[in-house]
Amino acid sequence: MSVSFTLTSQTEISCDIPIDLAKARHPQYGRYLDELEPGQVFEHPRGFTFTATNMLGFARTFMQANPLYLNRQYACDIGFPDLLASPQMVFNVTLSLGVQNDSEKAIANLGYYQVQFTRPVYPGDTLRAFTKVLERKDRGPDKPGITLIRTVGINQDDAVVLQYDRKIMVGWRGERSPTTPAPKTTMAFPSDDIALVELPLTGNNIVTGLGGPNTYFEDFTPGDIIVHANGRTITEEHMALTYGVGNSHPLHFDRVFSSALSGKMSGEPIVYGGLIFAWLDGLASRDVSEHAVWELGFSEGYHTQPAFAGDTVGALSRVLAVEDMPGIDGYGVVTLQLVGVKNISAAEALEQHGADLFLKEDAKRAAGKDKITDKIFEIERRLLVMRRSC
Amino acid sequence: MSVSFTLTSQTEISCDIPIDLAKARHPQYGRYLDELEPGQVFEHPRGFTFTATNMLGFARTFMQANPLYLNRQYACDIGFPDLLASPQMVFNVTLSLGVQNDSEKAIANLGYYQVQFTRPVYPGDTLRAFTKVLERKDRGPDKPGITLIRTVGINQDDAVVLQYDRKIMVGWRGERSPTTPAPKTTMAFPSDDIALVELPLTGNNIVTGLGGPNTYFEDFTPGDIIVHANGRTITEEHMALTYGVGNSHPLHFDRVFSSALSGKMSGEPIVYGGLIFAWLDGLASRDVSEHAVWELGFSEGYHTQPAFAGDTVGALSRVLAVEDMPGIDGYGVVTLQLVGVKNISAAEALEQHGADLFLKEDAKRAAGKDKITDKIFEIERRLLVMRRSC
Amino acid sequence: MSVSFTLTSQTEISCDIPIDLAKARHPQYGRYLDELEPGQVFEHPRGFTFTATNMLGFARTFMQANPLYLNRQYACDIGFPDLLASPQMVFNVTLSLGVQNDSEKAIANLGYYQVQFTRPVYPGDTLRAFTKVLERKDRGPDKPGITLIRTVGINQDDAVVLQYDRKIMVGWRGERSPTTPAPKTTMAFPSDDIALVELPLTGNNIVTGLGGPNTYFEDFTPGDIIVHANGRTITEEHMALTYGVGNSHPLHFDRVFSSALSGKMSGEPIVYGGLIFAWLDGLASRDVSEHAVWELGFSEGYHTQPAFAGDTVGALSRVLAVEDMPGIDGYGVVTLQLVGVKNISAAEALEQHGADLFLKEDAKRAAGKDKITDKIFEIERRLLVMRRSC
Repeated sequence: MSVSFTLTSQTEISCDIPIDLAKARHPQYGRYLDELEPGQVFEHPRGFTFTATNMLGFARTFMQANPLYLNRQYACDIGFPDLLASPQMVFNVTLSLGVQNDSEKAIANLGYYQVQFTRPVYPGDTLRAFTKVLERKDRGPDKPGITLIRTVGINQDDAVVLQYDRKIMVGWRGERSPTTPAPKTTMAFPSDDIALVELPLTGNNIVTGLGGPNTYFEDFTPGDIIVHANGRTITEEHMALTYGVGNSHPLHFDRVFSSALSGKMSGEPIVYGGLIFAWLDGLASRDVSEHAVWELGFSEGYHTQPAFAGDTVGALSRVLAVEDMPGIDGYGVVTLQLVGVKNISAAEALEQHGADLFLKEDAKRAAGKDKITDKIFEIERRLLVMRRSC
Repeated sequence: MSVSFTLTSQTEISCDIPIDLAKARHPQYGRYLDELEPGQVFEHPRGFTFTATNMLGFARTFMQANPLYLNRQYACDIGFPDLLASPQMVFNVTLSLGVQNDSEKAIANLGYYQVQFTRPVYPGDTLRAFTKVLERKDRGPDKPGITLIRTVGINQDDAVVLQYDRKIMVGWRGERSPTTPAPKTTMAFPSDDIALVELPLTGNNIVTGLGGPNTYFEDFTPGDIIVHANGRTITEEHMALTYGVGNSHPLHFDRVFSSALSGKMSGEPIVYGGLIFAWLDGLASRDVSEHAVWELGFSEGYHTQPAFAGDTVGALSRVLAVEDMPGIDGYGVVTLQLVGVKNISAAEALEQHGADLFLKEDAKRAAGKDKITDKIFEIERRLLVMRRSC
Repeated sequence: MSVSFTLTSQTEISCDIPIDLAKARHPQYGRYLDELEPGQVFEHPRGFTFTATNMLGFARTFMQANPLYLNRQYACDIGFPDLLASPQMVFNVTLSLGVQNDSEKAIANLGYYQVQFTRPVYPGDTLRAFTKVLERKDRGPDKPGITLIRTVGINQDDAVVLQYDRKIMVGWRGERSPTTPAPKTTMAFPSDDIALVELPLTGNNIVTGLGGPNTYFEDFTPGDIIVHANGRTITEEHMALTYGVGNSHPLHFDRVFSSALSGKMSGEPIVYGGLIFAWLDGLASRDVSEHAVWELGFSEGYHTQPAFAGDTVGALSRVLAVEDMPGIDGYGVVTLQLVGVKNISAAEALEQHGADLFLKEDAKRAAGKDKITDKIFEIERRLLVMRRSC
């Protein structure tokens, strides 16, 4: 079937249509606390088509060193059928797909939990996302509440590629108009409780000059602290990058909105946290993940201070564990703590703050310590890393 | 046939070639008023190859919400063979292809008229453009004149994808050197007087969560005023975006040029108007065009104030008409007025200026009213929008 | 073969792992002077996959006018099987692939020599790079030394696409820790001593409107000085663009690093020189290289002043020679001197500095002249340019 029609000259009509202010409406997106009910499922609009170039571009922008995301020839030699989207891109896109519905009214992003990558994303894949409300915690009528949500990203074959939980702080709707209804869901909430991952790896760990010589599984020992040399100055580019991954929260790109806020969010647009995490991961990558063949997951991720255009971010990693992966010869699991700082070099931050840099910020009060204002992020992550020989 | 040769060591020779300032030439582009004659046809240089990624990238940068431009799977489900280039990208690229010849000497862009989209642009298509001078209005020897031009964009099969008229203000050449001659035209000026559009739509309007639930044809009523919630702060990114679509006017990216001007264009580079329009369209899209399957056209488009890096733009739409499209069941035509504001939220602008916001700026004087300095743009647009059920 | 495993819930463990500052390490990249030995060969990490879109994007960002890099249809009509990567992109990427090993500790980039392009790069190609240390010049223990290196870029078939020499100034390691070892080389240093270039040109020089009418071989005469009309204001975009081509030197994107330096590099991040060269080449392109079918090479390239975000760059070209290419009918060789200026228009720079603008900066002292602080770059380049008729 096709539709055909003839275009005709367009005549100006605005002056003939009476202007009636009573007919104004103000569509609002996101959800207020009163609008969230445990058990609700939302299907998120738009979707996102991945291409070789937007994958390469994301990896380059965020300074990834793992050739899996930069070099198609290498990805194929390892066993994958094509380039891989970096886990950071899959995470940023999936989270952002949910923002218009889940968090465009959120006051703060409190934490990431149980982020699990279950399938590779290749050029040509299209992702869409669903969210289920798991909990809503009221803290009284005069305080914003906290909601725990689970989001799942699926590809064009309805197979889950990512799932994660997230806590966000949201205010009450009160007298304000309700937000725009969510699209109706067209399928059951996808879930992958078993989370079986299958990777087409050849097992012939190739020795090339494309990864460094000292970032194999054998090069990590629990307790190692790795101070990443370079920082990255974040520019106003962050506003375009936020929309580039599909995140529609005005806090990140609308100075009129940001300036009208009160408190510590007031003023310049705040850098979307997913971008910060991606830069920190990238800054660390040539020291820790050049030979990672899979990002198993993240958890306990907290943005402990906001960042703004002009800030320079730096990163440190600490090796928490190295383990064999049962039944799998050529690779092992490395668990790392990743910490981000701003406007101080990573080396200088370690010099100044010592062991406290790796103490979780929300544990500081109980330990009788002050929060570290130079510190912007902390998370634990698990990587499947190539062994030197197999 | 092939050409082969051997590269030899390159010996420095600049010091042996006498420097003769008399041999300096200063190629200039664009046309002065004296150089434009009604009936002239120009073939524009370069051309522009569209790819899935530059199409997706444009749609994301300018905040498009319609999944047709963001999600290949959705575009195919609707009936198109692939992703579509957004109309804003086709318009921006076609206009920009003509700038080096048509308007690189223009003082101001006065208006867009009868912009008509006649064929989809898909990944892999290459566009080029032609312009015909329709009118030249002299306003005396001491004043810049006004020219009306028609530009047509064609694809690699010489089929017209876009045509539009544009009025620009241009100064006299006077004592200055002539501009660089235009390339010779290699074919007759393409025109599509009938402007028949054929779209491969399936007519099975799919219900998905990928578009919102309340932007179907039935959701629009003449007179509705829709205040779009978010704004977008424009950064210095605009300079690269201008060249990204192929626009070569130095007013938009050359601060040495801008600073040397006198009057209200003097100072910082001005944001190319096509980009402003694209952002306003994007800001409006989740409220008005998520379910549009075709942009029929624009007309009476005016940039009423310039914008600069640092400005935050916002948008409002007013529904002017909703009409059936004869012989076509599943879709209807929605005509909208789109208004842009800057450095004020759309809601606040409506609060402050009321009905005057939708009164055309060039009608203000006759109505005994002042121009609204917060207002930056106005246009009428016609969309072919999916019905909820068919 | 494939690898499969089940993802399990991730338990927080950082608080259980003792924090031992003695286990901190600080991986450093680049080489100090003491670490460079003539004859050493380095294989560079990562590699870079070219796609139609990142090639088009690079050409657009740097304002290329040659349709070979912008228009797939034109490239195919000329005889190439697909779009070409612009020489500037091939040069920028290959140089950047080597930075982490060769020059991340460099104090200054002193010059480019014998840059030769030996094969086209097409969409889908993946490049990697090797460097050989040719010379190390010590200037005493209290002074940085100078090293001459040769870098070669090869494609996925191990065929050389680019080779060039570069001089860099590097400090002694002294008491500092050694830098991270380079990856082992997996093949002999690739070299193309004969440098035979084969191009699949049809020889039927097509006449289209896609290039201008006056940039054919016949339009150039030795001694011509061509003042390019437009400039380009460089914004903070340069930081992302630097990493976009894979350059990891913190001088270009880490303000904490830059601010801690002393001397004229201290303060804001300096624009990576390869980007400057690419913009100057782009600004010149519509006047000199629209009909170039091959960039034969560059030599004697010097960045004579640094540039920063906010600077506006402009360009001038001088024709040094026009020569037949023996055995090749339809094309001739044009040798040009390209000069860059900043924060002054090219026309004004010629007005102010006259012939001195084309005198090499390092020859100024011997000639009893001052250096020109407005001048930022100079190089000689050789192009294979289409004849008007053949």
